[in-house]
Amino acid sequence: MLIDRQKAAEILTENDDFLIISHANPDGDTLGSAYGLCGILQGMGKRAKTICADEVAPRMEYLKKAVIPQEFEEKCIVTVDVADVKLLGALEEKYGDNIYLAIDHHESRKEFARYTVVDSTAAATCEMIFEIAQLMKAKLNSNIAACLYTGLSTDTGCFKYSNTTSRTHNIAASLIEYDFHHAELNYKLFDVKTRGRIDLEMRLMRDMEFFCNDKIALVTITSELMDEFQGRVDVEDFNGLASMPRQVEGVILGVTIKQKGENVFKVSMRSEEPITAAKLCSLFGGGGHARAAGCTINGNLEFVRAKLLPVLEKAVKSV
Amino acid sequence: MLIDRQKAAEILTENDDFLIISHANPDGDTLGSAYGLCGILQGMGKRAKTICADEVAPRMEYLKKAVIPQEFEEKCIVTVDVADVKLLGALEEKYGDNIYLAIDHHESRKEFARYTVVDSTAAATCEMIFEIAQLMKAKLNSNIAACLYTGLSTDTGCFKYSNTTSRTHNIAASLIEYDFHHAELNYKLFDVKTRGRIDLEMRLMRDMEFFCNDKIALVTITSELMDEFQGRVDVEDFNGLASMPRQVEGVILGVTIKQKGENVFKVSMRSEEPITAAKLCSLFGGGGHARAAGCTINGNLEFVRAKLLPVLEKAVKSV
Repeated sequence: MLIDRQKAAEILTENDDFLIISHANPDGDTLGSAYGLCGILQGMGKRAKTICADEVAPRMEYLKKAVIPQEFEEKCIVTVDVADVKLLGALEEKYGDNIYLAIDHHESRKEFARYTVVDSTAAATCEMIFEIAQLMKAKLNSNIAACLYTGLSTDTGCFKYSNTTSRTHNIAASLIEYDFHHAELNYKLFDVKTRGRIDLEMRLMRDMEFFCNDKIALVTITSELMDEFQGRVDVEDFNGLASMPRQVEGVILGVTIKQKGENVFKVSMRSEEPITAAKLCSLFGGGGHARAAGCTINGNLEFVRAKLLPVLEKAVKSV
Repeated sequence: MLIDRQKAAEILTENDDFLIISHANPDGDTLGSAYGLCGILQGMGKRAKTICADEVAPRMEYLKKAVIPQEFEEKCIVTVDVADVKLLGALEEKYGDNIYLAIDHHESRKEFARYTVVDSTAAATCEMIFEIAQLMKAKLNSNIAACLYTGLSTDTGCFKYSNTTSRTHNIAASLIEYDFHHAELNYKLFDVKTRGRIDLEMRLMRDMEFFCNDKIALVTITSELMDEFQGRVDVEDFNGLASMPRQVEGVILGVTIKQKGENVFKVSMRSEEPITAAKLCSLFGGGGHARAAGCTINGNLEFVRAKLLPVLEKAVKSV
């Protein structure tokens, strides 16, 4: 059942013994929402704990400071930033059928909870948590503020992307009034790279291919390459590479081909107007946003390239 | 004479025929302030024009849309984001003695104008321009908002650095209500790199040196290296490299040595608590902020390294 923020605030106010679940392979928004909401509920004198199917990355360990670990039997299960029950990962089997409240900002969702509050205009689920906390007249502190700020910051590329709104900036303004070190936190979240990641980026940059007068840039990540970097990079280090090719000046279509299995390749595209990444990806059964989209093509790398490149070149040449 | 924002608003309201000057080697804040204020004054029915000793970088050309070019003899000269009359560059000789109003946010300044409004708590001079515009009840439009946003965004690393305050976020919230494409603008300002710059970064990363169990990272930019990259990189591409060494995970002191003349080297340091960059640089006659500072050492590279490295290693070992 779809509800509004006010009703969500009432549910949280009226219940107790909360278990808050983040999505698997967790990012800053799902974790910031979970630890932030957990801290807020504890501050209201309630019992609350949070779990995730996967580990919290070391650079986000600070989020845990918002919460005092508590042992109790959960009565009210809440998911945050979870668009599909499958995204609970290993926790789906145990909790999937018993989600009482889902708080989320994803546009495309599969409903699974008894009550769902969703707002796809929110840049981050943390925006919604902040607003629900206000409706509950809950008190924040610097640790909770750091959690909610983390969600805002990570989901918007530090207020850089088009999903950032006035509302995002206004909430950020309220949050940094609490005395946490937002600059240090952003430094950890955005600037620091492992030496393995740096080596990987250098390799990918070196081997980047250009087509159509350098308007298309292509990066290829094969299983062999991943094996070669095994042990030198974290699993996380293979994420966030899709934005690399379009960072090169003059490129209007950046493409990343990443091997997912023996004959399975995930293709990510980032485009500039008037190239529509979603439209190009839809030709291969994929989709996404206008300027950031993806598709999966089966076959060996040679086959994938032969299928993909002529289509991309035609699209860019027609501009 | 030091004045407040209200008095600055009165001066701007009462005068006409403005010439607004940016500092030489202009950044987003000085240009955003100049074109933004110029557009604001033109919108109030006044004559206003803006100049700078140096060219506007192509990625910031869009700022010019805020202004309609006008020809007239200037009567009231205003500088924006200029901390010292020397920073007017080639324009100092002609205008240096006749600055009527200086609007600036730098903490250390040398006064040169008849009236000066300065606020070192402002993250950017554009914050002050926005507030003065409000006091004048001036109307903004999307082009002017894009100018002021550019100053906020560039001086704070897109709201990433510690100079970002609630005030910065609140002003950003007001500005993006105007319909300009802040994400496209940020993409141009922060993400795009020339192929020459990418090659340069790869070279510097490859040759980066590590000391003290990889806690110190050192990048060296010699005249030979700059000559080698001549023609392949823009002059601008040699800026902003000082943050590179500290982006490596585990590094608490990032150092960049950049050759300035035959026996002159500029040393930039970026540090993490408890290492104080300003303190280390002061040992060599330099200074700056706690976590970002610089100094100049004379001698050949071997001499500079021999002078510098033992001091840095001692500081890091004592942590």
